[in-house]
Amino acid sequence: MSSRKVIELFFDVVSPYSWLAFEVMCRYRKVWNIELRLRPTFLGGVMQGSGNKPPGLVPNKFLYMGKDLNRLSEYFNVPLKPPADVPEAMFKKGSLNAMRFVTAVQEMEKSGDERVERVSRELWRRIWYEDRDITEPASLSEAAMKAGLSDSEIKRALELCNSQEVKEKLKSATEEALDYGAFGFPLVVCHLNGKPELFFGSDRFELLAHCIGEKWLGPLPDKSTAKL
Amino acid sequence: MSSRKVIELFFDVVSPYSWLAFEVMCRYRKVWNIELRLRPTFLGGVMQGSGNKPPGLVPNKFLYMGKDLNRLSEYFNVPLKPPADVPEAMFKKGSLNAMRFVTAVQEMEKSGDERVERVSRELWRRIWYEDRDITEPASLSEAAMKAGLSDSEIKRALELCNSQEVKEKLKSATEEALDYGAFGFPLVVCHLNGKPELFFGSDRFELLAHCIGEKWLGPLPDKSTAKL
Repeated sequence: MSSRKVIELFFDVVSPYSWLAFEVMCRYRKVWNIELRLRPTFLGGVMQGSGNKPPGLVPNKFLYMGKDLNRLSEYFNVPLKPPADVPEAMFKKGSLNAMRFVTAVQEMEKSGDERVERVSRELWRRIWYEDRDITEPASLSEAAMKAGLSDSEIKRALELCNSQEVKEKLKSATEEALDYGAFGFPLVVCHLNGKPELFFGSDRFELLAHCIGEKWLGPLPDKSTAKL
Repeated sequence: MSSRKVIELFFDVVSPYSWLAFEVMCRYRKVWNIELRLRPTFLGGVMQGSGNKPPGLVPNKFLYMGKDLNRLSEYFNVPLKPPADVPEAMFKKGSLNAMRFVTAVQEMEKSGDERVERVSRELWRRIWYEDRDITEPASLSEAAMKAGLSDSEIKRALELCNSQEVKEKLKSATEEALDYGAFGFPLVVCHLNGKPELFFGSDRFELLAHCIGEKWLGPLPDKSTAKL
Protein backbone atom coordinates (compact mmCIF):
# COMPACT_ATOMS: atom_id res chain seq x y z
CA MET A 1 0.00 0.00 0.00
CA SER A 2 1.17 3.47 -0.90
CA SER A 3 1.52 6.06 1.84
CA ARG A 4 0.82 8.83 -0.63
CA LYS A 5 -2.11 11.11 0.13
CA VAL A 6 -4.95 10.80 -2.34
CA ILE A 7 -6.06 14.08 -3.90
CA GLU A 8 -8.96 14.26 -6.32
CA LEU A 9 -9.31 17.14 -8.76
CA PHE A 10 -12.85 17.67 -10.05
CA PHE A 11 -12.74 19.81 -13.18
CA ASP A 12 -14.47 20.81 -16.39
CA VAL A 13 -12.56 22.09 -19.43
CA VAL A 14 -15.08 24.91 -19.84
CA SER A 15 -13.81 26.44 -16.58
CA PRO A 16 -10.66 28.62 -16.85
CA TYR A 17 -9.91 28.53 -13.12
CA SER A 18 -10.01 24.73 -13.44
CA TRP A 19 -7.23 24.93 -15.99
CA LEU A 20 -5.02 26.81 -13.52
CA ALA A 21 -5.68 24.26 -10.78
CA PHE A 22 -5.19 21.38 -13.22
CA GLU A 23 -1.74 22.59 -14.34
CA VAL A 24 -0.62 23.40 -10.81
CA MET A 25 -1.77 20.03 -9.45
CA CYS A 26 -0.18 18.17 -12.39
CA ARG A 27 3.11 19.98 -11.70
CA TYR A 28 2.97 19.29 -7.98
CA ARG A 29 2.12 15.64 -8.32
CA LYS A 30 5.80 15.17 -9.13
CA VAL A 31 6.86 17.36 -6.18
CA TRP A 32 4.51 16.40 -3.34
CA ASN A 33 4.00 12.90 -2.01
CA ILE A 34 0.48 12.61 -3.45
CA GLU A 35 -1.60 10.43 -5.71
CA LEU A 36 -3.52 12.82 -7.97
CA ARG A 37 -6.79 11.52 -9.34
CA LEU A 38 -8.24 13.47 -12.25
CA ARG A 39 -12.03 13.60 -12.07
CA PRO A 40 -13.67 14.89 -15.27
CA THR A 41 -17.02 16.36 -14.24
CA PHE A 42 -19.80 18.48 -15.75
CA LEU A 43 -19.90 22.07 -14.48
CA GLY A 44 -23.43 22.68 -15.76
CA GLY A 45 -24.70 19.82 -13.59
CA VAL A 46 -22.92 21.13 -10.50
CA MET A 47 -24.23 24.67 -10.98
CA GLN A 48 -27.77 23.38 -11.39
CA GLY A 49 -27.49 20.83 -8.58
CA SER A 50 -26.11 23.35 -6.08
CA GLY A 51 -28.33 26.25 -7.15
CA ASN A 52 -25.28 28.39 -7.91
CA LYS A 53 -25.18 31.08 -10.60
CA PRO A 54 -22.20 31.92 -12.82
CA PRO A 55 -20.18 34.76 -11.23
CA GLY A 56 -19.96 36.54 -14.57
CA LEU A 57 -23.61 37.61 -14.35
CA VAL A 58 -22.54 40.50 -12.09
CA PRO A 59 -20.94 43.05 -14.46
CA ASN A 60 -18.18 44.23 -12.08
CA LYS A 61 -17.33 40.61 -11.31
CA PHE A 62 -17.16 39.73 -15.00
CA LEU A 63 -14.77 42.62 -15.66
CA TYR A 64 -12.64 41.69 -12.66
CA MET A 65 -12.43 38.04 -13.70
CA GLY A 66 -11.03 39.02 -17.08
CA LYS A 67 -8.20 40.98 -15.48
CA ASP A 68 -7.71 38.39 -12.75
CA LEU A 69 -7.38 35.54 -15.29
CA ASN A 70 -4.99 37.60 -17.32
CA ARG A 71 -2.68 38.18 -14.38
CA LEU A 72 -2.98 34.61 -13.11
CA SER A 73 -2.26 33.24 -16.58
CA GLU A 74 1.03 35.11 -16.67
CA TYR A 75 1.91 34.29 -13.06
CA PHE A 76 1.07 30.56 -13.33
CA ASN A 77 2.43 30.28 -16.85
CA VAL A 78 -0.80 28.85 -18.24
CA PRO A 79 -1.70 30.36 -21.63
CA LEU A 80 -5.24 31.49 -20.88
CA LYS A 81 -6.98 33.82 -23.30
CA PRO A 82 -10.75 34.27 -23.01
CA PRO A 83 -12.85 33.46 -26.08
CA ALA A 84 -14.35 36.51 -27.79
CA ASP A 85 -17.88 35.57 -26.65
CA VAL A 86 -17.51 34.05 -23.18
CA PRO A 87 -21.24 33.50 -22.43
CA GLU A 88 -21.71 31.85 -25.84
CA ALA A 89 -18.71 29.54 -25.43
CA MET A 90 -19.24 28.73 -21.75
CA PHE A 91 -22.99 28.55 -21.35
CA LYS A 92 -24.74 28.29 -24.72
CA LYS A 93 -22.36 25.78 -26.28
CA GLY A 94 -21.18 24.36 -22.98
CA SER A 95 -19.10 21.29 -22.29
CA LEU A 96 -21.37 18.26 -22.06
CA ASN A 97 -19.90 16.59 -25.16
CA ALA A 98 -16.36 17.54 -24.25
CA MET A 99 -16.62 16.12 -20.74
CA ARG A 100 -18.28 12.94 -22.02
CA PHE A 101 -15.34 12.64 -24.39
CA VAL A 102 -12.80 13.07 -21.56
CA THR A 103 -14.78 10.54 -19.52
CA ALA A 104 -14.66 8.11 -22.48
CA VAL A 105 -10.88 8.57 -22.71
CA GLN A 106 -10.62 7.86 -18.99
CA GLU A 107 -12.79 4.75 -19.42
CA MET A 108 -10.34 3.49 -22.05
CA GLU A 109 -7.19 4.10 -19.96
CA LYS A 110 -5.58 0.91 -18.78
CA SER A 111 -3.71 2.57 -15.94
CA GLY A 112 -2.96 6.10 -14.90
CA ASP A 113 -4.40 9.38 -16.14
CA GLU A 114 -1.87 10.27 -18.84
CA ARG A 115 -4.28 10.49 -21.76
CA VAL A 116 -6.96 12.18 -19.69
CA GLU A 117 -4.38 14.79 -18.77
CA ARG A 118 -3.23 15.36 -22.34
CA VAL A 119 -6.71 15.39 -23.90
CA SER A 120 -8.07 17.74 -21.23
CA ARG A 121 -5.16 20.13 -21.76
CA GLU A 122 -5.78 20.17 -25.53
CA LEU A 123 -9.46 20.91 -24.99
CA TRP A 124 -8.66 23.79 -22.65
CA ARG A 125 -6.18 25.06 -25.20
CA ARG A 126 -8.90 25.02 -27.86
CA ILE A 127 -11.55 26.91 -25.94
CA TRP A 128 -9.41 29.02 -23.59
CA TYR A 129 -6.49 29.87 -25.87
CA GLU A 130 -7.52 29.42 -29.50
CA ASP A 131 -11.19 30.39 -29.12
CA ARG A 132 -12.29 27.31 -31.02
CA ASP A 133 -15.22 24.92 -30.72
CA ILE A 134 -15.15 21.97 -28.27
CA THR A 135 -18.63 20.59 -28.95
CA GLU A 136 -18.39 18.93 -32.39
CA PRO A 137 -16.95 15.43 -32.95
CA ALA A 138 -14.41 16.92 -35.38
CA SER A 139 -13.21 19.30 -32.65
CA LEU A 140 -12.89 16.51 -30.11
CA SER A 141 -10.99 14.35 -32.66
CA GLU A 142 -8.57 17.14 -33.41
CA ALA A 143 -7.84 17.75 -29.73
CA ALA A 144 -7.34 14.02 -29.16
CA MET A 145 -5.04 13.78 -32.17
CA LYS A 146 -2.89 16.60 -30.82
CA ALA A 147 -2.87 14.76 -27.49
CA GLY A 148 -1.34 11.76 -29.24
CA LEU A 149 -4.27 9.35 -29.46
CA SER A 150 -4.38 7.03 -32.47
CA ASP A 151 -7.17 7.12 -35.05
CA SER A 152 -8.70 3.93 -33.71
CA GLU A 153 -8.58 5.20 -30.15
CA ILE A 154 -10.29 8.43 -31.19
CA LYS A 155 -12.98 6.50 -33.08
CA ARG A 156 -13.58 4.32 -30.02
CA ALA A 157 -13.75 7.34 -27.68
CA LEU A 158 -16.30 9.07 -29.92
CA GLU A 159 -18.45 5.92 -29.95
CA LEU A 160 -18.17 5.60 -26.19
CA CYS A 161 -19.37 9.22 -25.79
CA ASN A 162 -22.85 8.08 -26.79
CA SER A 163 -22.87 5.00 -24.61
CA GLN A 164 -25.09 4.82 -21.57
CA GLU A 165 -22.07 3.72 -19.57
CA VAL A 166 -20.08 6.93 -20.19
CA LYS A 167 -23.11 9.18 -19.79
CA GLU A 168 -23.79 7.55 -16.44
CA LYS A 169 -20.17 7.74 -15.39
CA LEU A 170 -20.02 11.49 -15.97
CA LYS A 171 -23.34 11.94 -14.24
CA SER A 172 -22.26 9.98 -11.21
CA ALA A 173 -18.92 11.87 -10.99
CA THR A 174 -20.92 15.10 -11.02
CA GLU A 175 -23.22 13.77 -8.29
CA GLU A 176 -20.22 12.68 -6.27
CA ALA A 177 -18.81 16.22 -6.49
CA LEU A 178 -22.16 17.62 -5.31
CA ASP A 179 -22.20 15.13 -2.43
CA TYR A 180 -18.77 16.38 -1.35
CA GLY A 181 -20.29 19.88 -1.33
CA ALA A 182 -19.34 21.30 -4.74
CA PHE A 183 -20.89 24.53 -6.00
CA GLY A 184 -18.45 25.12 -8.87
CA PHE A 185 -15.05 24.03 -10.19
CA PRO A 186 -12.22 23.44 -9.70
CA LEU A 187 -12.77 21.42 -6.56
CA VAL A 188 -9.79 19.73 -4.93
CA VAL A 189 -10.66 17.02 -2.42
CA CYS A 190 -7.78 15.91 -0.18
CA HIS A 191 -8.28 12.69 1.71
CA LEU A 192 -6.64 13.15 5.08
CA ASN A 193 -7.01 10.48 7.75
CA GLY A 194 -10.10 9.17 6.02
CA LYS A 195 -11.70 12.61 6.00
CA PRO A 196 -12.24 14.68 2.83
CA GLU A 197 -10.94 18.27 2.98
CA LEU A 198 -12.37 20.52 0.25
CA PHE A 199 -10.57 23.33 -1.52
CA PHE A 200 -12.56 25.33 -4.03
CA GLY A 201 -10.93 27.44 -6.72
CA SER A 202 -7.35 27.94 -7.79
CA ASP A 203 -6.29 30.13 -4.89
CA ARG A 204 -5.88 27.77 -1.95
CA PHE A 205 -2.68 25.94 -2.92
CA GLU A 206 -0.63 27.48 -0.13
CA LEU A 207 -3.30 26.49 2.40
CA LEU A 208 -3.68 23.05 0.79
CA ALA A 209 0.09 22.48 1.07
CA HIS A 210 -0.06 23.50 4.73
CA CYS A 211 -2.96 21.09 5.38
CA ILE A 212 -1.23 18.09 3.80
CA GLY A 213 2.13 18.88 5.41
CA GLU A 214 3.88 19.81 2.16
CA LYS A 215 5.55 23.01 1.01
CA TRP A 216 4.09 25.52 -1.47
CA LEU A 217 6.86 26.61 -3.81
CA GLY A 218 4.83 28.96 -5.97
CA PRO A 219 3.79 28.19 -9.55
CA LEU A 220 6.40 25.83 -10.92
CA PRO A 221 7.36 26.03 -14.59
CA ASP A 222 6.07 23.23 -16.78
CA LYS A 223 7.16 22.03 -20.16
CA SER A 224 3.70 21.06 -21.31
CA THR A 225 2.36 24.61 -21.37
CA ALA A 226 5.49 26.77 -21.31
CA LYS A 227 6.15 26.36 -25.01
CA LEU A 228 2.98 28.08 -26.20
CA MET B 1 7.77 62.75 -2.12
CA SER B 2 7.68 59.17 -0.99
CA SER B 3 8.50 56.43 -3.47
CA ARG B 4 6.29 53.99 -1.61
CA LYS B 5 3.49 52.38 -3.58
CA VAL B 6 0.06 53.43 -2.45
CA ILE B 7 -2.28 50.56 -1.61
CA GLU B 8 -5.88 51.13 -0.58
CA LEU B 9 -7.81 48.53 1.38
CA PHE B 10 -11.59 48.85 1.11
CA PHE B 11 -13.22 46.88 3.92
CA ASP B 12 -16.27 46.43 6.10
CA VAL B 13 -16.07 44.90 9.59
CA VAL B 14 -19.10 42.73 8.82
CA SER B 15 -16.99 40.80 6.29
CA PRO B 16 -14.79 38.01 7.69
CA TYR B 17 -12.60 37.76 4.59
CA SER B 18 -11.97 41.50 5.02
CA TRP B 19 -10.56 40.79 8.47
CA LEU B 20 -8.04 38.38 7.00
CA ALA B 21 -6.96 40.88 4.35
CA PHE B 22 -6.85 43.68 6.92
CA GLU B 23 -4.52 41.80 9.27
CA VAL B 24 -2.28 40.61 6.44
CA MET B 25 -2.01 44.08 4.91
CA CYS B 26 -1.37 45.68 8.32
CA ARG B 27 1.43 43.16 8.93
CA TYR B 28 2.96 43.69 5.49
CA ARG B 29 2.88 47.45 5.63
CA LYS B 30 5.92 47.11 7.87
CA VAL B 31 7.56 44.63 5.48
CA TRP B 32 6.82 45.94 2.00
CA ASN B 33 7.67 49.39 0.73
CA ILE B 34 4.03 50.53 0.65
CA GLU B 35 1.76 53.20 2.00
CA LEU B 36 -1.38 51.42 3.18
CA ARG B 37 -4.56 53.47 3.18
CA LEU B 38 -7.44 52.02 5.18
CA ARG B 39 -10.77 52.72 3.49
CA PRO B 40 -13.80 51.98 5.69
CA THR B 41 -16.70 51.22 3.33
CA PHE B 42 -20.24 49.85 3.51
CA LEU B 43 -20.60 46.31 2.13
CA GLY B 44 -24.39 46.56 1.85
CA GLY B 45 -24.02 49.51 -0.51
CA VAL B 46 -21.48 47.72 -2.69
CA MET B 47 -23.61 44.57 -2.93
CA GLN B 48 -26.63 46.62 -3.92
CA GLY B 49 -24.72 48.91 -6.27
CA SER B 50 -23.03 46.04 -8.11
CA GLY B 51 -26.08 43.76 -8.16
CA ASN B 52 -24.14 41.04 -6.34
CA LYS B 53 -25.72 38.51 -3.97
CA PRO B 54 -24.15 37.15 -0.77
CA PRO B 55 -22.35 33.86 -1.55
CA GLY B 56 -23.88 32.24 1.52
CA LEU B 57 -27.28 31.99 -0.20
CA VAL B 58 -26.06 28.83 -1.98
CA PRO B 59 -26.16 26.10 0.72
CA ASN B 60 -23.00 24.24 -0.42
CA LYS B 61 -21.15 27.54 -0.60
CA PHE B 62 -22.28 28.53 2.88
CA LEU B 63 -21.06 25.21 4.30
CA TYR B 64 -17.76 25.51 2.46
CA MET B 65 -17.17 29.07 3.66
CA GLY B 66 -17.52 27.98 7.28
CA LYS B 67 -14.79 25.37 6.85
CA ASP B 68 -12.68 27.65 4.68
CA LEU B 69 -12.77 30.47 7.26
CA ASN B 70 -11.92 28.02 10.00
CA ARG B 71 -8.81 26.82 8.20
CA LEU B 72 -7.79 30.31 7.08
CA SER B 73 -8.24 31.65 10.61
CA GLU B 74 -5.76 29.09 11.92
CA TYR B 75 -3.35 29.55 9.01
CA PHE B 76 -3.38 33.35 9.09
CA ASN B 77 -3.52 33.48 12.87
CA VAL B 78 -6.62 35.68 12.91
CA PRO B 79 -9.12 34.56 15.58
CA LEU B 80 -12.23 34.21 13.42
CA LYS B 81 -15.25 32.41 14.83
CA PRO B 82 -18.59 32.81 13.02
CA PRO B 83 -21.50 34.20 15.03
CA ALA B 84 -24.20 31.64 15.83
CA ASP B 85 -26.66 33.26 13.42
CA VAL B 86 -24.61 34.52 10.47
CA PRO B 87 -27.50 35.83 8.31
CA GLU B 88 -28.93 37.70 11.32
CA ALA B 89 -25.59 39.27 12.25
CA MET B 90 -24.42 40.00 8.72
CA PHE B 91 -27.55 40.99 6.85
CA LYS B 92 -30.40 41.77 9.26
CA LYS B 93 -28.34 43.76 11.74
CA GLY B 94 -25.65 44.74 9.26
CA SER B 95 -22.86 47.25 9.63
CA LEU B 96 -24.12 50.70 8.64
CA ASN B 97 -23.69 52.14 12.15
CA ALA B 98 -20.38 50.39 12.70
CA MET B 99 -18.90 51.67 9.45
CA ARG B 100 -20.19 55.18 10.11
CA PHE B 101 -18.44 54.95 13.48
CA VAL B 102 -15.16 53.84 11.87
CA THR B 103 -15.54 56.66 9.34
CA ALA B 104 -16.08 59.11 12.20
CA VAL B 105 -12.93 57.85 13.92
CA GLN B 106 -11.03 58.33 10.66
CA GLU B 107 -12.44 61.84 10.34
CA MET B 108 -11.05 62.65 13.79
CA GLU B 109 -7.55 61.27 13.10
CA LYS B 110 -4.94 63.96 12.80
CA SER B 111 -2.50 61.80 10.89
CA GLY B 112 -2.20 58.14 10.07
CA ASP B 113 -4.69 55.33 10.49
CA GLU B 114 -3.73 54.03 13.92
CA ARG B 115 -7.09 54.49 15.60
CA VAL B 116 -9.03 53.33 12.56
CA GLU B 117 -6.93 50.18 12.63
CA ARG B 118 -7.46 49.53 16.33
CA VAL B 119 -11.20 50.33 16.36
CA SER B 120 -11.84 48.22 13.25
CA ARG B 121 -10.00 45.28 14.80
CA GLU B 122 -12.07 45.56 18.00
CA LEU B 123 -15.30 45.63 15.99
CA TRP B 124 -14.28 42.52 14.02
CA ARG B 125 -13.37 40.86 17.30
CA ARG B 126 -16.86 41.62 18.66
CA ILE B 127 -18.85 40.28 15.74
CA TRP B 128 -16.46 37.64 14.34
CA TYR B 129 -14.98 36.27 17.56
CA GLU B 130 -17.24 37.11 20.48
CA ASP B 131 -20.58 36.95 18.62
CA ARG B 132 -21.64 40.29 20.07
CA ASP B 133 -23.59 43.24 18.72
CA ILE B 134 -21.90 45.98 16.66
CA THR B 135 -24.98 48.11 15.93
CA GLU B 136 -25.77 49.84 19.26
CA PRO B 137 -23.96 52.96 20.51
CA ALA B 138 -23.00 51.07 23.69
CA SER B 139 -21.36 48.36 21.58
CA LEU B 140 -19.43 50.90 19.51
CA SER B 141 -18.31 52.68 22.69
CA GLU B 142 -17.06 49.46 24.22
CA ALA B 143 -15.07 48.55 21.12
CA ALA B 144 -13.57 52.05 20.98
CA MET B 145 -12.70 51.90 24.67
CA LYS B 146 -10.84 48.63 24.16
CA ALA B 147 -9.10 50.28 21.21
CA GLY B 148 -7.78 52.93 23.59
CA LEU B 149 -9.94 55.93 22.72
CA SER B 150 -10.73 58.34 25.53
CA ASP B 151 -14.28 58.98 26.78
CA SER B 152 -14.39 62.37 25.09
CA GLU B 153 -13.13 60.94 21.81
CA ILE B 154 -15.78 58.23 21.92
CA LYS B 155 -18.50 60.80 22.67
CA ARG B 156 -17.33 62.91 19.74
CA ALA B 157 -17.20 59.91 17.38
CA LEU B 158 -20.75 58.89 18.32
CA GLU B 159 -21.98 62.43 17.65
CA LEU B 160 -20.14 62.51 14.32
CA CYS B 161 -21.85 59.23 13.31
CA ASN B 162 -25.09 61.13 12.88
CA SER B 163 -23.56 64.06 11.03
CA GLN B 164 -24.26 64.58 7.35
CA GLU B 165 -20.54 64.90 6.81
CA VAL B 166 -19.73 61.37 8.01
CA LYS B 167 -22.75 59.83 6.32
CA GLU B 168 -21.66 61.41 3.06
CA LYS B 169 -18.04 60.39 3.54
CA LEU B 170 -18.99 56.71 3.95
CA LYS B 171 -21.34 56.92 1.01
CA SER B 172 -18.74 58.45 -1.23
CA ALA B 173 -16.08 55.89 -0.19
CA THR B 174 -18.58 53.18 -1.12
CA GLU B 175 -19.24 54.83 -4.47
CA GLU B 176 -15.52 55.15 -5.07
CA ALA B 177 -15.14 51.41 -4.47
CA LEU B 178 -17.94 50.73 -6.96
CA ASP B 179 -16.28 53.03 -9.48
CA TYR B 180 -13.07 51.00 -9.16
CA GLY B 181 -15.18 47.93 -9.96
CA ALA B 182 -16.02 46.49 -6.52
CA PHE B 183 -18.62 43.75 -6.15
CA GLY B 184 -17.75 42.76 -2.57
CA PHE B 185 -15.00 43.14 0.06
CA PRO B 186 -12.15 43.07 0.77
CA LEU B 187 -10.94 45.02 -2.23
CA VAL B 188 -7.27 45.94 -2.45
CA VAL B 189 -6.43 48.65 -4.95
CA CYS B 190 -2.73 48.99 -5.81
CA HIS B 191 -1.70 52.15 -7.57
CA LEU B 192 1.01 51.17 -10.02
CA ASN B 193 2.34 53.73 -12.48
CA GLY B 194 -0.81 55.76 -12.07
CA LYS B 195 -3.01 52.77 -12.87
CA PRO B 196 -5.21 51.03 -10.28
CA GLU B 197 -4.79 47.24 -10.07
CA LEU B 198 -7.65 45.50 -8.25
CA PHE B 199 -7.37 42.44 -6.04
CA PHE B 200 -10.60 41.05 -4.64
CA GLY B 201 -10.69 38.76 -1.62
CA SER B 202 -8.06 37.53 0.77
CA ASP B 203 -6.43 35.01 -1.56
CA ARG B 204 -4.36 37.09 -3.97
CA PHE B 205 -1.52 38.23 -1.72
CA GLU B 206 1.08 36.14 -3.52
CA LEU B 207 -0.05 37.57 -6.86
CA LEU B 208 -0.27 41.07 -5.37
CA ALA B 209 3.31 40.80 -4.09
CA HIS B 210 4.42 39.65 -7.55
CA CYS B 211 2.64 42.61 -9.19
CA ILE B 212 4.20 45.23 -6.91
CA GLY B 213 7.67 43.65 -7.06
CA GLU B 214 7.71 42.50 -3.45
CA LYS B 215 8.02 39.08 -1.85
CA TRP B 216 5.19 37.07 -0.29
CA LEU B 217 6.48 35.51 2.91
CA GLY B 218 3.27 33.78 3.94
CA PRO B 219 1.08 34.92 6.83
CA LEU B 220 3.36 36.71 9.25
CA PRO B 221 2.72 36.45 12.98
CA ASP B 222 1.28 39.55 14.61
CA LYS B 223 1.21 40.59 18.21
CA SER B 224 -2.13 42.35 17.96
CA THR B 225 -4.15 39.21 17.29
CA ALA B 226 -1.81 36.40 18.39
CA LYS B 227 -2.59 36.85 22.06
CA LEU B 228 -6.26 35.90 21.83
